[in-house]
Formats: sequence, C-alpha cells, structure tokens
Amino acid sequence: MEKQDYKKRVSALRKNFELEADGKHDTLWIIQSENRRYCSGFTAEDPQCNESCGSLLISGEHTLLVTDSRYTLQAEKEAAYFSVKTLKTGLMDDFPELMKETGTKTLGFEGDYLPWKKHGELKEKLTALSPPVALEPMDSVIEEMREIKEEAEIRALKDAAHMISRILDELFSQLKPGMTELEAAWQIERLARDAGADGLSFPPIVASGPNGALPHAEPSNRKLRQGEPIIIDAGVKLHGYCSDITRTVFLGSPDKEFADIYRTVRKAQLAALKSARPHMQSTDLDSIARNLIKEAGYGDYFGHSLGHGVGLATHEGPRVGPRNPVTFKPGNVVTIEPGIYIPGKGGVRLEEMVWITETGSEVLTDNNHFYNFRT
Amino acid sequence: MEKQDYKKRVSALRKNFELEADGKHDTLWIIQSENRRYCSGFTAEDPQCNESCGSLLISGEHTLLVTDSRYTLQAEKEAAYFSVKTLKTGLMDDFPELMKETGTKTLGFEGDYLPWKKHGELKEKLTALSPPVALEPMDSVIEEMREIKEEAEIRALKDAAHMISRILDELFSQLKPGMTELEAAWQIERLARDAGADGLSFPPIVASGPNGALPHAEPSNRKLRQGEPIIIDAGVKLHGYCSDITRTVFLGSPDKEFADIYRTVRKAQLAALKSARPHMQSTDLDSIARNLIKEAGYGDYFGHSLGHGVGLATHEGPRVGPRNPVTFKPGNVVTIEPGIYIPGKGGVRLEEMVWITETGSEVLTDNNHFYNFRT
Repeated sequence: MEKQDYKKRVSALRKNFELEADGKHDTLWIIQSENRRYCSGFTAEDPQCNESCGSLLISGEHTLLVTDSRYTLQAEKEAAYFSVKTLKTGLMDDFPELMKETGTKTLGFEGDYLPWKKHGELKEKLTALSPPVALEPMDSVIEEMREIKEEAEIRALKDAAHMISRILDELFSQLKPGMTELEAAWQIERLARDAGADGLSFPPIVASGPNGALPHAEPSNRKLRQGEPIIIDAGVKLHGYCSDITRTVFLGSPDKEFADIYRTVRKAQLAALKSARPHMQSTDLDSIARNLIKEAGYGDYFGHSLGHGVGLATHEGPRVGPRNPVTFKPGNVVTIEPGIYIPGKGGVRLEEMVWITETGSEVLTDNNHFYNFRT
Repeated sequence: MEKQDYKKRVSALRKNFELEADGKHDTLWIIQSENRRYCSGFTAEDPQCNESCGSLLISGEHTLLVTDSRYTLQAEKEAAYFSVKTLKTGLMDDFPELMKETGTKTLGFEGDYLPWKKHGELKEKLTALSPPVALEPMDSVIEEMREIKEEAEIRALKDAAHMISRILDELFSQLKPGMTELEAAWQIERLARDAGADGLSFPPIVASGPNGALPHAEPSNRKLRQGEPIIIDAGVKLHGYCSDITRTVFLGSPDKEFADIYRTVRKAQLAALKSARPHMQSTDLDSIARNLIKEAGYGDYFGHSLGHGVGLATHEGPRVGPRNPVTFKPGNVVTIEPGIYIPGKGGVRLEEMVWITETGSEVLTDNNHFYNFRT
C-alpha cells in the first residue's frame, strides 16, 4: 500500500461522510485500531484494550495522526498521507488545540469503541470551548468500507490463507497419537514464525476427542488418540491481514458415527461454497448449510453462525448467520465454517475463506486437501 | 485459587460497593476481562476488544456468570462460586430477564470499558422495563482491589518474574553479532513456550543500536552489532499473571558514552529500588530516579514514566510517573524502569518488578545479573 492508496481511502471517507459538504460531522476522530490502520497505514497495535497508540483526525482539509512520543517516528514513517502530531501532555489536554487547528464544529466519534466515561469527559471539555464543539457518533462507514476488499487486500488475504493452509499441511504430516493438543498448537506457532508471518491471528484451537465438542476449546495436555476427530482452527496474520481456517483430521479412520458427521459437515460446506455469490442474502447462505445439517438429523448440534468476514481483523463484517441478513457484495471475504458438536464425544468443523467476486465466489484457502480420511 | 478465595473477593466487593446496604448500586455488571477473571476465576480471554466471552452480575444475593454456549462448560468448571447462565439469543435480549432474576433496581457498569453506543442501547432497554432499571457507573473499586496483591498473587507474580529472568539469561548466552532483532524476539517466545508459560504478556521488544532510541520499537531485521546497546523488554504470563522486565546488554564493551548512560540509568534504578516503600507517594519515587538522570545531564532523554503496576494485566495500577500521585500500599507490585534514549544513537532501559511489602520492598525479578558489562 502506497501513500496514494491511503489518499484514495481518505477521499472516499470524506465523500461518504460528506465532510466537505454540510454533513453531520466536519471532523472524524478515529480511535479503533484496525480502522486507524485502514485509513492511515499506521501499523502499531494497541498494547491493551484500554490503551491507545494513537488516533486520527480527518476533516475536509486535515489528516492528522495524533500520538505520543513513543510512536512518533513509526507514525511518520508509515502514515505518509498524515501529519503526525506528538501530544504534549495527553490527548484530553491537547484536544482543545487540535479542535482549533482543524476548525472542528462537530466531531464524529466511534460510538462502538469510545468508552462511556471517556465520552463524558470529552463532551464536558468540548462543550466548554468557545465556540463549543459538538460530539456526534459516526455511522459504521469505515467498517463498511473495510468489508469491500480492494485488489491489494485480496492478494494479502490470499497470501495469508495460503500460508496457514501450507502450515496445517506440514503440521498434519507431523501429528501422531501421544502428541498433546498444546504441543500441536505450539507447533503451529513455530511453523508460522518460520514461514515469516507477522504472528498468529488468534490463539490456535486444537481440540481432540471430547474436547472438540466445545467450539472454542483451549488446547490442553490431552494426548491425541487414534481414530478420534481432531479440530484444528488457526490463522496467521501477514502484512496485517488475517487468515482463519479449520480442519478436522483423524489419525487413522473415524468410527461410523464420525465418518457420517464429517460427510454431513463437508456436504453442508460444499453446498454453501457453491452458492456463495454477490447480491445474495447472508442468511440464505447460512440456511443452505444449516438445512443440510438439520436434514441429516444434527440440527441441534450446530449452535454457531456459518461464518464471518475476515480482513485486518479476524472477525469483522459481514457476519453470516441465521439472523441479521446482509446482502453480499463483490469484494466481501467471509469464512464458511459449519460444524457439528456432540457433547461428550467430539466435533467436526470445516472452515474455508471465500472471496465474493463480481460473478460468484472463489475459495482463498487451499480447499483441495484431505487428510487421513476421505469423504 | 479455590472457590473459597473467590467467595472472599466477592464478599469484599459487596462490602466495598455496599450492595447489601443502601449503596449506589444493587447489582454490578462486570465486563472487563481481567476484572471478570479476578472476581470469578473464569480464564477465557476475549477474542477481540469488541468481543466478549462473558460477563458477571453480582448482587447482594446473586453471583451470575453470563456467557454463550461456546464457553458454558469452561465457565462452569472454572467459576465455581458463580452460577453460569447460557444466553438464549444475546446479552441485550436476555438482559430484562436477568434484571428480574437478580431483582436489580440500579445496575452498576464499568464506565471505563462499556462502549458509548452499547450504553445507550442498554439504557433504552432498561428504562423501558417496569419497574425501570437505572444505570450508574461504578467507581474503579475492582481495579483498586487488584492493586493490592494477595499472597497467592505475589507467589504467581514471583513465578512469572523468575521465569522471564531465566529466559533472558538463556537468551543472552545465545546472542551474537549478526543475529537479527526478530530472531532474538522469536527465541524469547520459543523459550517461554518451552518453559511452560501461558504465553507472552506482550510482544517482546528487541531494539538494537539506534532502534533503541524508540522506547516502543518493534523488532526488525536489523542485525545485532558488537558494542552497541541492545534493549530487551519482555514478559511471560503464567497462571494468568504477567511479568515485565527490561535488560540492556552489550555484545562486548560499550563506548564511553553508553557506559556512562548505563551507569546513570542503573544508579537511578538502584536509588528507586532502595527507596520504594509503603505510604510513599508514587510521584516521589519517580522524582528520585528522574532527578538523578537530570543531574547527570540526560533529563531531556527520559520521556516516559518510571513504572506501572503489574498483575493480571501487564499495565495496571498504580501508575508511577511524574504526575497523578498515589500512595503506595503494601501489596502493590510495580515496575521500576528508568531509561535514557539518545535519538539516532540508541537507548538504555532497565526494568525490575518490585513488591511493596509491609515495611519496604522486595524485587521479584532476578536483579543480581549483569551481562557482558558491569557498571
């Protein structure tokens, strides 16, 4: 991504928010980490959810990146389309001057992320200014822009998807009975580092036998056993973009029940993969997979959504579930991950990343691999 | 930590918030991840800052852990003093019933963490109930309780501190010119896994030569060189508790300037370590180190605070800086980490973890090591 690309995004943002016309806001204040990176290219990650390494102020005229001295040099290097301002004491103290500099009358803020208390403090400070500055929540326009991936983003997601696909191939050649879930999880991390990932996009799930009945099990000291289903859900972050993939493997052959479950999940997934296309409702895609699982008699054992968007964040829009329909658009990238979980016994989940193209869809993960068990 | 320990914490909470008397709230809603763990023992970590794996509702009578089906079993296993409620559709939809069950009239919420928008939605929902439920921000009582570590917490922090101390010892025996910062950082992660850590408490900093002039530099492909300062700042999480340590090492001998800088930082740190005690003002401790650095002529090159509290989070209270004085109490655990950063040349930072005891203080990290260079 070049300076020019960020300029384009900021222009789109200005247009979408009518910053130069008589819109609801004249300046936007962007604090959310992925939104910040998306608009500016500043890659720093907030140390904790209650800590920030910077925020953006975007008006019709200004593009400011406000940070503290720890991040000034990095911000100047990375956010070429932004003027970097180093805070003198702290964001709250410096706000009045920043509002003056940007000529802000109404400041848009991210209501989904700004903590209630900070909003109150800021409101008090801004309404006391003369002239006062009003606070107005922003619509989720940046999140919606992020849902439509540009060409370079598709390439980045493809690279991240291929990397995790290859890593799991490598891992599967090493799995054997007696290895613990934690050892397998740790091996994923090691392979990701060796492959040159920025890091993992989330802590990997390795859930064997009965542990697989929990969709979000944490890897334990349980040893892998012959014949039982082993769910592995992992992803890498590469150049900021996340991948997310799930495979279920068996060391040797599954019993009849899990062979049937695996076939059912795979059938549901293939049907959804085949159907995914632009202008379709997300809930309809969910139904295609869910109905096949219901028809096979496992309807009560698929408790989560079919999938979610992936990009700079592992979980972003559009969500793909039985509720809250959205219309797929070309450029969406979503996971398709049906699963069946039998309490006390185990589970099967299969997840691919799918790019909604102009005419249909394309799987970004390596979908052509089957390990130790063929449907 | 046993069920009994969490019962004790909840009792203290009920007393501090006067939940059973006529306090400001009759029920507390706890969403913040470390607060949730501290009160309940539920170890799940929120996947993203905008996602939750559960929250607590604590009234004079009730201790509920509200989560979704993905986490039910884990919550039941870990949060023995809490009744686990699995959400039917979603937190917002289930809230009215939960308020009824707990007999809530005024709900306390964490204003530092609840996003503005969610607060608005909840407020609308709760005031529409009959009888209506009021929303009142909670004071930071849980955060203040977390600042006073119990015996078991000190042991856990000591274990985490020893582990990272030993890991850095091992790393230093492996460092050599030509190794990249990223390789060294990755080796820390590997050693942490081999040692059995839950994980790292934050991405490690390895900043060599000029990169060390940025207190929060990210490890790069830069190769380590003979004689230059190499700042290594890392920590492990063990049984949920974080460690945080910084060493500056030289491969071979530093030049005269950096030998002088190292001596200055070490002198400032030792003076602070010696002075740390209960009933002292945090700003006074900061001054002790800061004045020594000023006197040595490096006052402009120490831009950050002297330290911060450590516990379930890497950064928590009490903060130790030149502003916002707090009085140290027995049971506080803070870092003492002065540094000097010379733009374009490099930096030196030295960080230990210190436990404020009844009568003075005790260093939790292994403070008796010097590598390759003795002051």
